Amino acid sequence: MSQELRTRLYAALDAIELVDPHTHINALAPAATTLADIMGYHYYTELAHSAGMPRERIEEDGLDPKEKVGRLVEYLGSLENTIQSSWLIEMCQVFFGFQDDAITSRNWESLYERAAELMRQPDWADRVLKQSKLEAVFLTNDFDDPLEGFDTSRYVPCLRTDDLVFHLAQPKVRARLERATGISLGNASSLRSAVGKLFEHFIGRGARACAISLPPDFSPERVETTRAKAALGGVLRDGPKSNAEHNRDLSRHLFWMLAEYCVEFKLPFDLMIGVNRNVYAEGVHQGRDLFDSRVSLIQYKQLFNAFPRVMFPISVLASVTNQELVSYSWIFPNVLTNGHWWYSNTPTFIEHDAAARLEAVPRTKQIGYYSDMYKLEFALPKFAMYKRILAKILAERFVIDRSWKEERAVDLGRQVLRGNVDAVFGKF
Amino acid sequence: MSQELRTRLYAALDAIELVDPHTHINALAPAATTLADIMGYHYYTELAHSAGMPRERIEEDGLDPKEKVGRLVEYLGSLENTIQSSWLIEMCQVFFGFQDDAITSRNWESLYERAAELMRQPDWADRVLKQSKLEAVFLTNDFDDPLEGFDTSRYVPCLRTDDLVFHLAQPKVRARLERATGISLGNASSLRSAVGKLFEHFIGRGARACAISLPPDFSPERVETTRAKAALGGVLRDGPKSNAEHNRDLSRHLFWMLAEYCVEFKLPFDLMIGVNRNVYAEGVHQGRDLFDSRVSLIQYKQLFNAFPRVMFPISVLASVTNQELVSYSWIFPNVLTNGHWWYSNTPTFIEHDAAARLEAVPRTKQIGYYSDMYKLEFALPKFAMYKRILAKILAERFVIDRSWKEERAVDLGRQVLRGNVDAVFGKF
Amino acid sequence: MSQELRTRLYAALDAIELVDPHTHINALAPAATTLADIMGYHYYTELAHSAGMPRERIEEDGLDPKEKVGRLVEYLGSLENTIQSSWLIEMCQVFFGFQDDAITSRNWESLYERAAELMRQPDWADRVLKQSKLEAVFLTNDFDDPLEGFDTSRYVPCLRTDDLVFHLAQPKVRARLERATGISLGNASSLRSAVGKLFEHFIGRGARACAISLPPDFSPERVETTRAKAALGGVLRDGPKSNAEHNRDLSRHLFWMLAEYCVEFKLPFDLMIGVNRNVYAEGVHQGRDLFDSRVSLIQYKQLFNAFPRVMFPISVLASVTNQELVSYSWIFPNVLTNGHWWYSNTPTFIEHDAAARLEAVPRTKQIGYYSDMYKLEFALPKFAMYKRILAKILAERFVIDRSWKEERAVDLGRQVLRGNVDAVFGKF
Repeated sequence: MSQELRTRLYAALDAIELVDPHTHINALAPAATTLADIMGYHYYTELAHSAGMPRERIEEDGLDPKEKVGRLVEYLGSLENTIQSSWLIEMCQVFFGFQDDAITSRNWESLYERAAELMRQPDWADRVLKQSKLEAVFLTNDFDDPLEGFDTSRYVPCLRTDDLVFHLAQPKVRARLERATGISLGNASSLRSAVGKLFEHFIGRGARACAISLPPDFSPERVETTRAKAALGGVLRDGPKSNAEHNRDLSRHLFWMLAEYCVEFKLPFDLMIGVNRNVYAEGVHQGRDLFDSRVSLIQYKQLFNAFPRVMFPISVLASVTNQELVSYSWIFPNVLTNGHWWYSNTPTFIEHDAAARLEAVPRTKQIGYYSDMYKLEFALPKFAMYKRILAKILAERFVIDRSWKEERAVDLGRQVLRGNVDAVFGKF
Repeated sequence: MSQELRTRLYAALDAIELVDPHTHINALAPAATTLADIMGYHYYTELAHSAGMPRERIEEDGLDPKEKVGRLVEYLGSLENTIQSSWLIEMCQVFFGFQDDAITSRNWESLYERAAELMRQPDWADRVLKQSKLEAVFLTNDFDDPLEGFDTSRYVPCLRTDDLVFHLAQPKVRARLERATGISLGNASSLRSAVGKLFEHFIGRGARACAISLPPDFSPERVETTRAKAALGGVLRDGPKSNAEHNRDLSRHLFWMLAEYCVEFKLPFDLMIGVNRNVYAEGVHQGRDLFDSRVSLIQYKQLFNAFPRVMFPISVLASVTNQELVSYSWIFPNVLTNGHWWYSNTPTFIEHDAAARLEAVPRTKQIGYYSDMYKLEFALPKFAMYKRILAKILAERFVIDRSWKEERAVDLGRQVLRGNVDAVFGKF
Repeated sequence: MSQELRTRLYAALDAIELVDPHTHINALAPAATTLADIMGYHYYTELAHSAGMPRERIEEDGLDPKEKVGRLVEYLGSLENTIQSSWLIEMCQVFFGFQDDAITSRNWESLYERAAELMRQPDWADRVLKQSKLEAVFLTNDFDDPLEGFDTSRYVPCLRTDDLVFHLAQPKVRARLERATGISLGNASSLRSAVGKLFEHFIGRGARACAISLPPDFSPERVETTRAKAALGGVLRDGPKSNAEHNRDLSRHLFWMLAEYCVEFKLPFDLMIGVNRNVYAEGVHQGRDLFDSRVSLIQYKQLFNAFPRVMFPISVLASVTNQELVSYSWIFPNVLTNGHWWYSNTPTFIEHDAAARLEAVPRTKQIGYYSDMYKLEFALPKFAMYKRILAKILAERFVIDRSWKEERAVDLGRQVLRGNVDAVFGKF
């Protein structure tokens, strides 16, 4: 009974047109051009490396895309249990007509050629979007992105601010900010003006969110003006060598400023909480970051109280933080649950975390899922994974345990999958 | 098979007469008088506020009860996914003959009138108790509660001690203590005498437990006499402005004293561990507290070792602390698991936490559930939720996975639901 | 469907010949001689004590084994819900032909006699191994164990190093080290030589792993030579009273040295992370340790980066640390998941933790289970518990949710149960 019910609910959820509220798509090259763009995704390179592939074999200079795929295929057998592997297989089946259930030394070359052929079609990206039922995808734009050359109603700009908050001590970052805004960073007020210019630029180009990823020890606080000035002065003077207190104060000051601009420009502020960067320094590209699960949303108490008018869609990296996220979202009107991020984006954690949210957070305050993808082909299998789990939760915990009608359960699923994306970020 | 088995086990568990070992019932007004008493429960006001209702609309001075319900109804649609909403619907169906599966602008008024009519019956509270199969409910009494005017075998006093331990610096609290005991708080020995008087009073009125809720950073320790005296002196002199060390020492000293009196008066000491008060200062009444899940029972090591003769039924606020609770209860004879508290009182967390307890803590050391209710009508749907989950765990993990006979599984359920309440707090 | 599928998968997994990669077996007395050896396992004594049995009744000097079992039987009813109780019953059914589903005052004596009779057979240990499908079991050897008098291909030595790293300040431990190696511990270089001698001895006797259990606040770091020398000097001089910094530095120095020898001798280094020793000082033997779940693998960042050639099979004591273990194993080539340890070795935690691993860690990097047993009879019921859970996960999450063929699922199970033990520790 439950299995058929899950299947019916999945089918209904699968018919929904989606907007993907967080990706790393390059709007100027949104789809893959060969399987190397797909299998070069950090999930595969880092898992293959973890399973024994030397980093140099993947990151060799000038490595031919086909050769790269061939090398990765050697390690796919070791990863075939992972859910990341199942994304790859499902994607190949759906988009490239792949018939097998594993990519091996015997079948990869024909798959590679078939994929390359399809990807050469001029409308490949649009086909992928259509087949994935994606109306729009959010981008993750550097603060100095010109945001030009693409349709911003389909590829929606989002102001990513990690560099501003955590790396302004780097001369390169300051130079980028000055170039992007035409403002010289002499003092606190010019810094504020420069950041304001970024918001104007992004809003002018249809940005729907400001976003940032945060380390577990970050604790936002309002910094008094004199401290902020001293911090900025110190950092401008000493660069990356400036002292820890100045760096911390400047990070807090900039973060707070972003929240203030989010009020002014009515932008939601996506917080992605909990990542430690560069833990495994010898890891492959984008496969070096990990986390410390000892983090609490109590660190954000002052922020949530100070900015009642800013919506904070929040992602947490560790599943053990999910209950806090559920509870803070159930109490604070401006805190929302947002997707299942990175190391928590695997079925066991998604199921536990999503069920807890669906039971205790107002249905209007949950953004169910985003793909976090770098290439469009990944939305389909990733959303499919989520929709299967959502169907399971709705079947078991709502239709069976709470006697909900199926239609009502599907409505709830539709709201977290799509409705709330429109409600929070603006109608599409 | 499993579904029918769950239904059978649920039916058997549902036939058990209960004692509710922790509530906030006012013994002089135990049942609701209108639906506003029901929907004014903080779960609904805080969730409605979280979903967008301005606090002022709910907390308006002199707001008419019916008008209050009408306003809350506007937001119920946003909350209908929550388990708290299902408590409300189930209660209305059982007690008020409500036929629909949602309370809406179209049906709420007739429900309101029907409920008010039933609640006007002079024996309404007793009817609710009977229909809920409740023989007795524990109260949460302020230390200066006269405990008069009610049947203490049905409404069982419990000495709540948060004010003593954490707020004695407030002149109002000291004045209440002096008034309640007739003892002037001049020094350490008069403080001890005063607290002793409270215990005598409570024991004389049939109290069965001492209880307290504790913040995540509390770490009980025995404070040496000279330090304790200095702390008391400082707090008596400086009041709420006394220094942090004095405040901490006095809290520890009082907490330790309570444990000593629990030895003397043979009272269990309920510890509810992990709440941060007033995190969201602008929240609705009782909807301002949250938590930091970074807490460990290792903080209670000294206490558990020092008081082998005191039973500590323990509730933890965060599900991530549940494994520690399981392990400490499996090792320490005086540590017991107690219910599923507040932010952990939703099905996903209950299921995970209760299953872990049933597998690893002696069956004699688990108090399955308490309602934490403010009005009697809530025991029925809350216990029903727990019993459904308990039936599921017993079905899947005992009858199916471990080949237990159904009757044996029901016996286990009976013990955690009722038997251990009698064994720990005294026979009813 | 799912139930029959689980049964089929279990049967296939249950046919696999095992190597148990972590136990506390005494190779000179591997099997039990009476039921007192079985029921004297700390799980039963500590749970019985927790349920009310005075420690003195179990630990009485010169207590007759049969009398000891009789006393413990009085408390078994209170523990029958625990999974530890189910190990006992299953073992008695399989090995001793026990027919009932509980050990009670009425049936324990005949069970005791029957077991004793069987255990008197000269080949009892071999029979148990055979019936348990165990080809070999790893030991946990003190660093000064002569490793003589047994077949090291069946009882595989493993160098346990807690004493070296954490208790070298004790004169007794130093004396043991000097006696075992014939090296007088005068300075840093003689210490290094002595530890090297231990490795040579163990390797010469077929050791396959170095192992250690670690408290939650341990954070390995390389200690500079001058600091290390000062620490050693201080500890040699002051013994157990040496200052905290010297103790910590010496622990770190020795731990680092062990990792260096693991490179040289190509030994995996088992880390068992998270235990606090002697939390309940009045507890029964081996029933005094607990934990603080606030621990993070970020504490091991420097270690994992510094020793890319050492394999670190890691056990975590708290299930809330499992996601970090999954993520670190998915990123670091030298980090592996290892079994379900102690307080996490109960079905609810195993299921959650194992599912997360199977979904996200390369299949080559997971050591599914070890028994941690003290007597051979426990491998069978403990592995059976794990195999049932593994069968459930494979059935639900691979065959049903991901459409895997059953055979493929069994292959995955075989690899984590057995294949990876051979791959990581050397072929058996």
